[in-house]
Amino acid sequence: MKFNTKQDIRSIAALLDCKITGNTEILVTGINEIHMVEPGDIVFVDHPKYYQKALESAASVVLINQEVPSPEGKTLLIHPTPFKAFNFLIEHFVSQLPNKEAKVHPTATVYPNVFLGKNVTIGEHCILHAGAYIADETTIESHVIIGPNSVIGHDAFYYQKKDAAYNRLISCGGVHLKKNVEIGALCTIDRGVTGITHIGEGSKIDNQVHIGHDTQIGTNVLIAAGCGISGCVEIGNDVTIWGQVGMASGVKIADGATILGQSGVTKNISEGTEYFGTPAGPAKQKFKELAFLRNHVNL
Amino acid sequence: MKFNTKQDIRSIAALLDCKITGNTEILVTGINEIHMVEPGDIVFVDHPKYYQKALESAASVVLINQEVPSPEGKTLLIHPTPFKAFNFLIEHFVSQLPNKEAKVHPTATVYPNVFLGKNVTIGEHCILHAGAYIADETTIESHVIIGPNSVIGHDAFYYQKKDAAYNRLISCGGVHLKKNVEIGALCTIDRGVTGITHIGEGSKIDNQVHIGHDTQIGTNVLIAAGCGISGCVEIGNDVTIWGQVGMASGVKIADGATILGQSGVTKNISEGTEYFGTPAGPAKQKFKELAFLRNHVNL
Amino acid sequence: MKFNTKQDIRSIAALLDCKITGNTEILVTGINEIHMVEPGDIVFVDHPKYYQKALESAASVVLINQEVPSPEGKTLLIHPTPFKAFNFLIEHFVSQLPNKEAKVHPTATVYPNVFLGKNVTIGEHCILHAGAYIADETTIESHVIIGPNSVIGHDAFYYQKKDAAYNRLISCGGVHLKKNVEIGALCTIDRGVTGITHIGEGSKIDNQVHIGHDTQIGTNVLIAAGCGISGCVEIGNDVTIWGQVGMASGVKIADGATILGQSGVTKNISEGTEYFGTPAGPAKQKFKELAFLRNHVNL
Repeated sequence: MKFNTKQDIRSIAALLDCKITGNTEILVTGINEIHMVEPGDIVFVDHPKYYQKALESAASVVLINQEVPSPEGKTLLIHPTPFKAFNFLIEHFVSQLPNKEAKVHPTATVYPNVFLGKNVTIGEHCILHAGAYIADETTIESHVIIGPNSVIGHDAFYYQKKDAAYNRLISCGGVHLKKNVEIGALCTIDRGVTGITHIGEGSKIDNQVHIGHDTQIGTNVLIAAGCGISGCVEIGNDVTIWGQVGMASGVKIADGATILGQSGVTKNISEGTEYFGTPAGPAKQKFKELAFLRNHVNL
Repeated sequence: MKFNTKQDIRSIAALLDCKITGNTEILVTGINEIHMVEPGDIVFVDHPKYYQKALESAASVVLINQEVPSPEGKTLLIHPTPFKAFNFLIEHFVSQLPNKEAKVHPTATVYPNVFLGKNVTIGEHCILHAGAYIADETTIESHVIIGPNSVIGHDAFYYQKKDAAYNRLISCGGVHLKKNVEIGALCTIDRGVTGITHIGEGSKIDNQVHIGHDTQIGTNVLIAAGCGISGCVEIGNDVTIWGQVGMASGVKIADGATILGQSGVTKNISEGTEYFGTPAGPAKQKFKELAFLRNHVNL
Repeated sequence: MKFNTKQDIRSIAALLDCKITGNTEILVTGINEIHMVEPGDIVFVDHPKYYQKALESAASVVLINQEVPSPEGKTLLIHPTPFKAFNFLIEHFVSQLPNKEAKVHPTATVYPNVFLGKNVTIGEHCILHAGAYIADETTIESHVIIGPNSVIGHDAFYYQKKDAAYNRLISCGGVHLKKNVEIGALCTIDRGVTGITHIGEGSKIDNQVHIGHDTQIGTNVLIAAGCGISGCVEIGNDVTIWGQVGMASGVKIADGATILGQSGVTKNISEGTEYFGTPAGPAKQKFKELAFLRNHVNL
């Protein structure tokens, strides 16, 4: 999430009523969670296990629950509950965003019972079928089709566990569907937590597919019905994913890969390869394993 | 399903025009199918294979298609088609329920195109996103979020097979979501057939998850996208279920268990264990099996 | 798709401004893609790999991108881009169909926010729950139930790949649900590309099930939650399919077969057999394989 105008870090420290160390002259441009962080951003961390990752990230400001040495040029905000403070900042800056009505191009077709959130843009010749739900901060380029009752931009499934209970990180990111994307019926494409979930030009998604928050999908990707792609996944161009495939959070699929039906992808997949199985491996290897098993039992 | 007022068993026998044996003085308090039956209830049975189970159940009255000795203190209703008679009783007593309009707390947010059935209660600070469907007999406590186009309380998938055809048992149960439950987009949580489907306090459910009729889920349970939990499942507290997991009808998952992605659970799982595979077994064992296979084929 | 009136093939050649060879006297009755083609139909083919299949099909007219010898009695339309020409014909003849308003039997119950397309028929005593979406060219016989937010008749997921991009074949087929069919919540049943997707009498489908275009399902078939059935699948009568099963395009399942949960069916299944696994095999064999593996690792 980017702010409307740059913010003086001292005014943010004042807002949170917290101690500030390191570079106190910085102007902050936005707020992001660790997977999407960029220079100018505030990020948060509240567990020593992840301190180093946050401190070495691209973030200019780290909201942290313990006083540690500040990396050169960076700012630390010391707060007892960084997660709560981060949610507080999201609510504060979201409330300051201009709440523009959805901007729907006159050549687009919007069927009955479509829900359009705030700051939504619908491009030329789009078709939004009946019952489609388009949440706040969704950008849809031209010639995109959204199937009936599909849900674009709902909140990320992203919780912090504390004393056995789960606390929701407030989603303030968005979804960006490039031109010629087609989404079937009853799909869900979650908004980024603080960044943007992207579907690349010309990609086609069948019915009942789930795409998690902040996932990045390239151009001309084909995803068959019933797939579940977790959050923060990166899928290249020209990838083909058959039905009911699952992917764990954060995996990277290189260009031209093929994932066979019902596979469960838990590791990165390299360019042009064919994968199969749960957990997924190179398809040839997996088919050999199945043949071995079949032959041994038939003996 | 509980009746508004206790019913004289002889008046019910008269309603069904059927023979009554055993205790004819009983006052009946409700009607339940075999998995949810309690003292005071009528239950039905129409296959000798299940006679004993029904006769020994907690039910006070057994609607049965053959004259058998009545257990001490219990009542038998002898009817040629107990399934039809049971559906008849459900329709009769449901029609006598007060049809109260949905009671929505003024602090709750109900977005457009939300459907609210009869005898629905929505608690403080709930959010029902656009297109959500809340069926009859649903109770939602405070601070619950229902995602867009999700369906809470639709009828159970529960049929009796007779001469190759399937006859629906009419659902008269409900759903009860405890406080701080969060349900994603495009989920289905079926109502109990005659009892209540429960989701415990603080449990979080991702998108496109299905929960079957009469299933009982504990507190702080996490269910990732694409899972399919059958009817009559019992899930304890602090259970974590990763994406696309399936569970067979009636399995019991003890507190603190973890089920890895795409597993298919067919047996009970004990406390704190990690399970994987289809059918699911202890994850360590399953990973060893996969390694064995991989090594044998690489040789 | 059948035309309203028979069409002179020379007028169609004129419409496409293309060369015609072979039988130029033929009257054309409709247009179909290769899986559903019947005598009187136009079919298209644009890859030499599939020329023979198209030329030997039941089609009376083949729209093709190269001049080849015309089979006896058949007509060839030679066009540089048969796929585009085929889409052009579909749009042309769909625009000539009478656009009748949905015909809903007075005994049917239609809840709020139901979308009804053109040329839809809803039979006696049907129940369409809130948010259900019924697309153009859907025929629903009597006593059918459609669950909340289910989508019947959305476009086929059917693309032609050209220079890495995917081009949609315009769907002009329909869906036909026979009497006593019951469809759960959040299901998708796609319309045929040019033909009809059928669900046979008395079949019952649980929540979150996907049925692809042109699939043919028999009578009294039971499909549990979360299944994904591809396009052009043929399922016989009295088949039972447990939860989260997937089926590849074009497989045939004979009468009385049972497919166990989470199986992935990639080959035809014969009458009365029980299948399991991904890819699915006879269940007994698959269970033996699992036992072999378990025993070898425990040693």
